[in-house]
Amino acid sequence: MNNLSSSRTDDPAAGGFLIVDTAAVVANWRTLRDSAPSAKTCGAVMKADGYGLGAAELAPALAAAGCRDFFVAVPEEGIALRRAVPDHTIYVLSGPLGSLEPFITHNLTPVLNAPEQVAEWLAHSGGRDYVVQVDSGMNRLGLTAAELTELAPGLKPRLLMSHLCCADEPAHPMNQSQLAAFRVAREKLPGVPSSLAASSGIFLGPDYHFDLVRPGIGLYGGNPVPGQPNPVRAAATLRIRIVQVRRIDTPGAVGYGATHAVTPGMRLATVSAGYADGLLRSLGGRGKGMLGGIEVPIVGRVSMDLISFDVSAVPEEFARPGQWISVLGDGIDLDEQAGRAGTISYELLTGLSRRYARRYTGS
Amino acid sequence: MNNLSSSRTDDPAAGGFLIVDTAAVVANWRTLRDSAPSAKTCGAVMKADGYGLGAAELAPALAAAGCRDFFVAVPEEGIALRRAVPDHTIYVLSGPLGSLEPFITHNLTPVLNAPEQVAEWLAHSGGRDYVVQVDSGMNRLGLTAAELTELAPGLKPRLLMSHLCCADEPAHPMNQSQLAAFRVAREKLPGVPSSLAASSGIFLGPDYHFDLVRPGIGLYGGNPVPGQPNPVRAAATLRIRIVQVRRIDTPGAVGYGATHAVTPGMRLATVSAGYADGLLRSLGGRGKGMLGGIEVPIVGRVSMDLISFDVSAVPEEFARPGQWISVLGDGIDLDEQAGRAGTISYELLTGLSRRYARRYTGS
Repeated sequence: MNNLSSSRTDDPAAGGFLIVDTAAVVANWRTLRDSAPSAKTCGAVMKADGYGLGAAELAPALAAAGCRDFFVAVPEEGIALRRAVPDHTIYVLSGPLGSLEPFITHNLTPVLNAPEQVAEWLAHSGGRDYVVQVDSGMNRLGLTAAELTELAPGLKPRLLMSHLCCADEPAHPMNQSQLAAFRVAREKLPGVPSSLAASSGIFLGPDYHFDLVRPGIGLYGGNPVPGQPNPVRAAATLRIRIVQVRRIDTPGAVGYGATHAVTPGMRLATVSAGYADGLLRSLGGRGKGMLGGIEVPIVGRVSMDLISFDVSAVPEEFARPGQWISVLGDGIDLDEQAGRAGTISYELLTGLSRRYARRYTGS
Repeated sequence: MNNLSSSRTDDPAAGGFLIVDTAAVVANWRTLRDSAPSAKTCGAVMKADGYGLGAAELAPALAAAGCRDFFVAVPEEGIALRRAVPDHTIYVLSGPLGSLEPFITHNLTPVLNAPEQVAEWLAHSGGRDYVVQVDSGMNRLGLTAAELTELAPGLKPRLLMSHLCCADEPAHPMNQSQLAAFRVAREKLPGVPSSLAASSGIFLGPDYHFDLVRPGIGLYGGNPVPGQPNPVRAAATLRIRIVQVRRIDTPGAVGYGATHAVTPGMRLATVSAGYADGLLRSLGGRGKGMLGGIEVPIVGRVSMDLISFDVSAVPEEFARPGQWISVLGDGIDLDEQAGRAGTISYELLTGLSRRYARRYTGS
């Protein structure tokens, strides 16, 4: 079923194993790139450590496949990523946070979001490249239309960008409204390449593609078109080690708060990961795992470092200490598991902690 | 108001600042120790990297104050902590995960939870120290009463322990039931020291204290007695940098899904942290921050790397890019903020990511 038999001796200290399929991430990048053929360029958003899966490990594989434009959230992520892709463009979405120094020292390209950032960069960067973000209706980051009008005569950005707030809901009127606002903004900077679409935006169609698309979640296997078949492949498999299997002999309850009743004859497997490992507490009583090809439900509350599963339906030979329950991959869908936690794939992925041992396959 | 004016030049790359009050953690340890005077020993639970606040940084301060017993969840945490406290006892709550090697190499003391772990340790550890955990009703980890009876003649553990599942609810009948079960277990290993209470258990009274108490959340400022005045001090202050302040000029909405309406004249501050930094997505529309001594609500959804606050009530001189909004400490109570996210202080603390710059004060 898997190649983890050797991992027990490789990593006897870890409670869980995160297996990242580098080939799937690269294949997903190609799928997303090919879904926006009119865009000249397809970048890769690698903020939050590559959505939890490892920016430094994955960026070189994407670079080898032809990706030349990488996006991170804050300067320190750019500094870390620079070591992995020394020759490619790294954009920092926050723009400068109080100092230009990391941008200049590490050759990072800022996304300038506010008039103050624009003024500081133009005055002190020595003519280095930059991106301008315009707000097209999300009211989060970016110049307003009025600010862009005022500043446009002095701007020669490498790229003009904006961000969609409802791209995962194709029928939402914000999409058309933001597209219209972005088109107006583009006219103020003729000849400047532009970018609007992230993963979900790519699937809104060619009107949204412009010169550069910049997928994030789709690279990592999250479905960019909720409610439709997922066009990308799962990239993460997460297996947690069973510490103990208990056969219940008296009626009682399991876990904090004694919220879940147990009855004699049930078998419970407790695994060595919990919410401190990013398996959200909201999965308690709702999430599920896979063991021996059989779905097993989480029972009771998720603890900080432990989760209990009802493994009564699994033959005893597959439910023993030292064996592994999968909570992502191996038949457990990322988006479905996130939904069971009351959230989205993005939050589940970015919460995956470094307490797991990691293996990269397919590179 | 704070000493962060220098931090802009110290850490221009970070979007947020986590300030850990080492003196508060030590003071909390003393408070908890003194709340269980009949226990001979007060340990410290430092799993999940010291509940997110830094085990390696805090353990030496606790050791200097007299703490000699440290608890972590999994072997790899023990390996990391061993470098910080070379001469003290480090207990690993999971017990061995497939190999005894890290325990022997790094002098870690396992908590043995299952008959298989007991058998392996007794056969292959060369007579090294160990702890036995008995399950007293939580049905999570530990020997059953029947297993303990069967194995007791061959056991000479350093400590017998169990764990309470409802200690934060003093009136819950599980407390009395687990206490009774633990007393029965102790009689099977006469002369062996024992431990039942963590932070909340300490406040259930002297019957629960036995020989060693082992607080966790209380060290880090979480209230071990929900609904009553917090007997411990806040230890974590988290400030997030404002990237942009926007004055709304047209009616619209803010953030993903366009869920929160904004009206002309409002001022929104967007800060450079989000759910990838442990500020749970469930804080969207419910959490709050503090700016210039004024409470400011989170508006709209929490993004991966950004959160927007309504700062209309804050004078403009306190609400500018480069200034900081506090989301823990500075008047924002840990337990209250966690409640606003629909969870408990433990999950909020352990989710604090390493993307923050950190400073330790008061050591």
